Amino acid sequence: MEGGGGRKLSEEEVVACCGSTKFAKEMAMASPFANLEEAVSKARDIWFNKVDVNAWLQAFSSHPQIGQSSSSSSSSSSSSHAATAAQWSKGEQSAAMATSTTSILQELSHWNACYRDKFGFIFLICASGRSSAEILAELKKRYTNRPIVEFENAAQEQMKITELRLAKLFSAEAKDLPA
Amino acid sequence: MEGGGGRKLSEEEVVACCGSTKFAKEMAMASPFANLEEAVSKARDIWFNKVDVNAWLQAFSSHPQIGQSSSSSSSSSSSSHAATAAQWSKGEQSAAMATSTTSILQELSHWNACYRDKFGFIFLICASGRSSAEILAELKKRYTNRPIVEFENAAQEQMKITELRLAKLFSAEAKDLPA
Repeated sequence: MEGGGGRKLSEEEVVACCGSTKFAKEMAMASPFANLEEAVSKARDIWFNKVDVNAWLQAFSSHPQIGQSSSSSSSSSSSSHAATAAQWSKGEQSAAMATSTTSILQELSHWNACYRDKFGFIFLICASGRSSAEILAELKKRYTNRPIVEFENAAQEQMKITELRLAKLFSAEAKDLPA
Repeated sequence: MEGGGGRKLSEEEVVACCGSTKFAKEMAMASPFANLEEAVSKARDIWFNKVDVNAWLQAFSSHPQIGQSSSSSSSSSSSSHAATAAQWSKGEQSAAMATSTTSILQELSHWNACYRDKFGFIFLICASGRSSAEILAELKKRYTNRPIVEFENAAQEQMKITELRLAKLFSAEAKDLPA
């Protein structure tokens, strides 16, 4: 990483962080990045200022529903990067899953369906470290928002998820370096 | 209209005012309306609070590009209500067309393409009574906005167009009444 002109990212690596092909293209083109901070700063600029609303919708549609395993989502898991995204998603939801009861999962499933019906995309939340009860409470609260407000909330949550995953890419890289 | 329980609207009539099928369904279900004010108030509530962002995108895609005749747009003009929408659109752009020069039309076409490329939908403006130079200036100004800001601006402009067209529906109705 050091001295080598920074970390080059491929479109496929970025798509595992955020499922918009337009975002992935722009990020890959903007790389190499000297460090994670530089990558995150560029990612925020591209996500909020450059890509259009269709790119946001494409990214949202690449997530499994909260409380569902990613294998049951419709996303193709044929590529290794899709498998990486699925694995990361599972890890991000591990706190929620560990604290779940059948009744909470049923309620989550019900409110997820209501949410999708109202807003036209699935409920997105950066689940990392949150219990399933917290997620359910947040889902019920956000359900009352106007669609355009919730659209921007979802984009903010997607950015948090993207940042966590970029950090994983960079730390995986660091581990590959000689000590 | 009076004494008859108000003005019932069909989905087809509403689609000519705003090209979202979800919006049209909700408005038709909410009708009859006692008067235009009641219809506009309901329309604003449905448009901003009820229908999702996909409905907004569908409505945006039903407009011809500003400065282009609607016959060259991709919307089907097979139904009489599509023809009504095309006719209304032409009327709304009449001030702009009357004040156009070839060079302004060329510049409009160029900036329309830039706008669509950046935002993923066409530039929408309630053109009624505006000159082509005013429209071009507004297009250039709005081009600098963040995608999410422009998405909401476009929705506001769509609502203004919807209100003008609902007024036409109600005034056409009034003309049919005995004096």
